[in-house]
Amino acid sequence: MASAADKESEKIIPVPTSTSPPPETKGLAAAPPATSAGYFPVVNVVLRFLLFASGLVSVVVMVTSKQTEITQIPFPPFRAPVSAKFSHSPAFIYFVAALSVAGFYGLISTLVSIYALLKPSCSTKILSHFVIFDVLLLGIVASATGAAGGVAYIGLKGNTHTAWRKVCNVYGDFCRHIGGSVAVSLFGSIVLVLLVILSIHSISKKIPK
Amino acid sequence: MASAADKESEKIIPVPTSTSPPPETKGLAAAPPATSAGYFPVVNVVLRFLLFASGLVSVVVMVTSKQTEITQIPFPPFRAPVSAKFSHSPAFIYFVAALSVAGFYGLISTLVSIYALLKPSCSTKILSHFVIFDVLLLGIVASATGAAGGVAYIGLKGNTHTAWRKVCNVYGDFCRHIGGSVAVSLFGSIVLVLLVILSIHSISKKIPK
Repeated sequence: MASAADKESEKIIPVPTSTSPPPETKGLAAAPPATSAGYFPVVNVVLRFLLFASGLVSVVVMVTSKQTEITQIPFPPFRAPVSAKFSHSPAFIYFVAALSVAGFYGLISTLVSIYALLKPSCSTKILSHFVIFDVLLLGIVASATGAAGGVAYIGLKGNTHTAWRKVCNVYGDFCRHIGGSVAVSLFGSIVLVLLVILSIHSISKKIPK
Repeated sequence: MASAADKESEKIIPVPTSTSPPPETKGLAAAPPATSAGYFPVVNVVLRFLLFASGLVSVVVMVTSKQTEITQIPFPPFRAPVSAKFSHSPAFIYFVAALSVAGFYGLISTLVSIYALLKPSCSTKILSHFVIFDVLLLGIVASATGAAGGVAYIGLKGNTHTAWRKVCNVYGDFCRHIGGSVAVSLFGSIVLVLLVILSIHSISKKIPK
């Protein structure tokens, strides 16, 4: 009974006691993070990998959106192949730049998080640095999603007040690429929000009651 | 000498010791937060008030941007007064909605933070709830700023590839209002980033070394 009670206290309070394993046993990697910080490090790695994946997918889908159609032009020969591509709009260029940074950061932070998962001693310090970059990137990715979404909406619906005609009736495939890319980057923004909330939850759990 | 050393330990370790004042002295309001949490609660209140102010200013500037000019129209009498106002663009409507929510939240959270400043015992719990809303609002305000900025840039420069003509050469005053409003909301986004980073810093300072 006494040893069971000791094990119980070991689960709740992660500080080293006389019954906890000595630091020499850290070669048995997987167990310590699972008991000391719960599910957090694994969810952290998964979310960071999702951030990397969403950044990569949205950049690739946006960059490969080029579409060429025969359209009317105001000078002879009056009909010619005209291309639509993302680099025609500054908002889409900003989107590609922001999501590239987010995807690259997702890759780096996934690797560092896996390293922290194997060596849990440095986990809190790494975490508190990462969460600041997460917040900054959330602002950048959300604004890029908003800018690209705002411009894409004009392309989809047009604006009768300013006589901006819609382009998606001609360049349907281009617009599907843009829409998919914006949707994936919205998913990336939500992943960043979850990462920040998870980090705050994990940090505030370590405050003694 | 001994009493000076006691005072020193009182500053560093905020847990109640035998030399710390008993809880009955909490009527003397201002001193406890200044010693237990440093400059944080005051900066917190100031930043939240700045968030409220920037939300209010950007919404008011955006809503009062209506401008009427005599312009060419494609049907008789061919010249007529045409108004430009924010409600002609879905991006600007989203902007007004998002910044209204941010300003209202800034007002509420300023009042609650002032209450927490006077009663520091409940400060940590309030803080960890507020920081989640801060992160969500950061995403919303940043995306609204991006959307309005992206559409305003088309209004300013036009887009030759899609034949979207610029409108700011005609509606200059309207565009100055939009630009000012987007700039103030960008300031509001930066305030939200600072609030989140400050909260994380304040929470992680409470973790025992």
